[in-house]
Amino acid sequence: MYREKIKVLDCTIRDGGLINNHNFDHSFVKKVFKAISDAGVDYMEIGYKNSPKLFSAKDYGLWKFCSDDDIKKITDGIETNTKISVMVDVGRVDIDEVKPAKESPVDMVRVATYVKDIDKAIFLENQFADKGYETAINIMAISKDQGPELEEALQQIESESKAKVVYIVDSFGNLYQESTEHLVKLFKSILKTREVGFHGHNNQQLAFSNTIEAIIFNANYLDATVYGIGRAAGNCPLELLIGFLKNPKFDIRPILDLISKEFIPLREKIEWGYIIPYAIAGMMNAHPREAMALRESDKKENYREFYEKLTNIGMD
Amino acid sequence: MYREKIKVLDCTIRDGGLINNHNFDHSFVKKVFKAISDAGVDYMEIGYKNSPKLFSAKDYGLWKFCSDDDIKKITDGIETNTKISVMVDVGRVDIDEVKPAKESPVDMVRVATYVKDIDKAIFLENQFADKGYETAINIMAISKDQGPELEEALQQIESESKAKVVYIVDSFGNLYQESTEHLVKLFKSILKTREVGFHGHNNQQLAFSNTIEAIIFNANYLDATVYGIGRAAGNCPLELLIGFLKNPKFDIRPILDLISKEFIPLREKIEWGYIIPYAIAGMMNAHPREAMALRESDKKENYREFYEKLTNIGMD
Repeated sequence: MYREKIKVLDCTIRDGGLINNHNFDHSFVKKVFKAISDAGVDYMEIGYKNSPKLFSAKDYGLWKFCSDDDIKKITDGIETNTKISVMVDVGRVDIDEVKPAKESPVDMVRVATYVKDIDKAIFLENQFADKGYETAINIMAISKDQGPELEEALQQIESESKAKVVYIVDSFGNLYQESTEHLVKLFKSILKTREVGFHGHNNQQLAFSNTIEAIIFNANYLDATVYGIGRAAGNCPLELLIGFLKNPKFDIRPILDLISKEFIPLREKIEWGYIIPYAIAGMMNAHPREAMALRESDKKENYREFYEKLTNIGMD
Repeated sequence: MYREKIKVLDCTIRDGGLINNHNFDHSFVKKVFKAISDAGVDYMEIGYKNSPKLFSAKDYGLWKFCSDDDIKKITDGIETNTKISVMVDVGRVDIDEVKPAKESPVDMVRVATYVKDIDKAIFLENQFADKGYETAINIMAISKDQGPELEEALQQIESESKAKVVYIVDSFGNLYQESTEHLVKLFKSILKTREVGFHGHNNQQLAFSNTIEAIIFNANYLDATVYGIGRAAGNCPLELLIGFLKNPKFDIRPILDLISKEFIPLREKIEWGYIIPYAIAGMMNAHPREAMALRESDKKENYREFYEKLTNIGMD
């Protein structure tokens, strides 16, 4: 599948940071950036740009805040065509603290939002666009929000926002091929002047195949992470996506080295991937929070009870 | 996705047996059969029916041979609607040793074959059919054999064989949605009086999604294994497939219990699943044997060298 317009965005450090409170050290992040860069990946998302006034620097690592200085320490000295992305949440960023794009190592800002918060998201996204950043809007929990509100939100983005890309985010890992096809077609039909992106979650081992499905129906911006790292079940594995895309600009080998040397040992320390409670949550179209709590408890392998609990929620 | 005609075949013990020389003990196999049965799964494939003259009983477990007596020890005393299946390879079974179906606990016999051996496979399959067994032909390594020989083989099956089901077997874990769609449509177009089946391998985390794709294009016989167990990368996870199919006859909970109690500990002892060398072999459309050898060596995590070796094979 070679299509020149396809852009791959690695969000290893950003989504992986949700497992460890963004506590990846500089040395690790630099190794990841070097490999992503050598692999020819288009973007690397390094974390969240939260205001330090809202969260304590004692409780979180650097990549909860993504100061320009910390990012420069990663990118300095590495020849690269890989652009840097950061994610922002509505209400958690102080726009006055943000420098213009030309003074910052950040190239792209992605605003994560639910359908219900789309007005705030567009307002925030346009402020970043006005500062010269490439911008994207990532619509989360899409498997719960497929009614007329979604169509209205997309129409509003098309008419009011400056976002270059609008992402379908399968937060609950609930989509499969037909639901992905439906959503990509819907997005493409309304967002006539924007690119469509896809961010899968791997609860049911469908993140990679849903990403392929999104490609087939002309989504051009694709999220992935090294070895599928990410909160709960994780994401579409970058190595599989690069192996599938036949674009000669990509080289899988730096990613293979990175997995060998860094991610196999890391997986022994922090947990992500195909784990039954996350699969159950995906099937049930539920937020992974109950499954994450289960994995922290002494009932971590008690799948039947968890399944029955999730089945009964809302039926009382 | 509720379609009454869909039949699920669990091949946990048969395909899992390829990892441990078919050395599952009676107690374990009985627990698996009970859970499969309680879950309402249509078939359980318990192993290979090889002639004891060809392989030494010292080197292999019981499920390399699948004597009627050993199978009866598993099924006796369990109320069930689950049928028993065994697999046979061309040239490895002595048909004279096989009793008529009405005297055997076996319901279905599946003949595994490459396209090139289709004449022998049909001859063998028809002998089992004549003894009263339901029969199937499983065409292996399909991602390597998609030329005119495949179409001829399918025409020959349609005109000469008594097989009820013909399976697409993605031995190398190389298929994705579009190639699966192409194959299922091809099989359905030629095999007008047969059911089409699908057996995926999970090298690229696509076994479940390819199985869904096969369902969409009217394959009705679907293979899966508990927790995806199977040689190398393993198979389509049964728990995901049952979660997806909305047929009320299935109950996922006995499978969840089985994974909690038996398969989580088992996975600590024997290896299968998403492992990078198997993913590389899948991308390259290569047999998993080199990757399996790598995993037994002291270079088991040396992915780059393995990738470069596989890339260079055939280019010397």
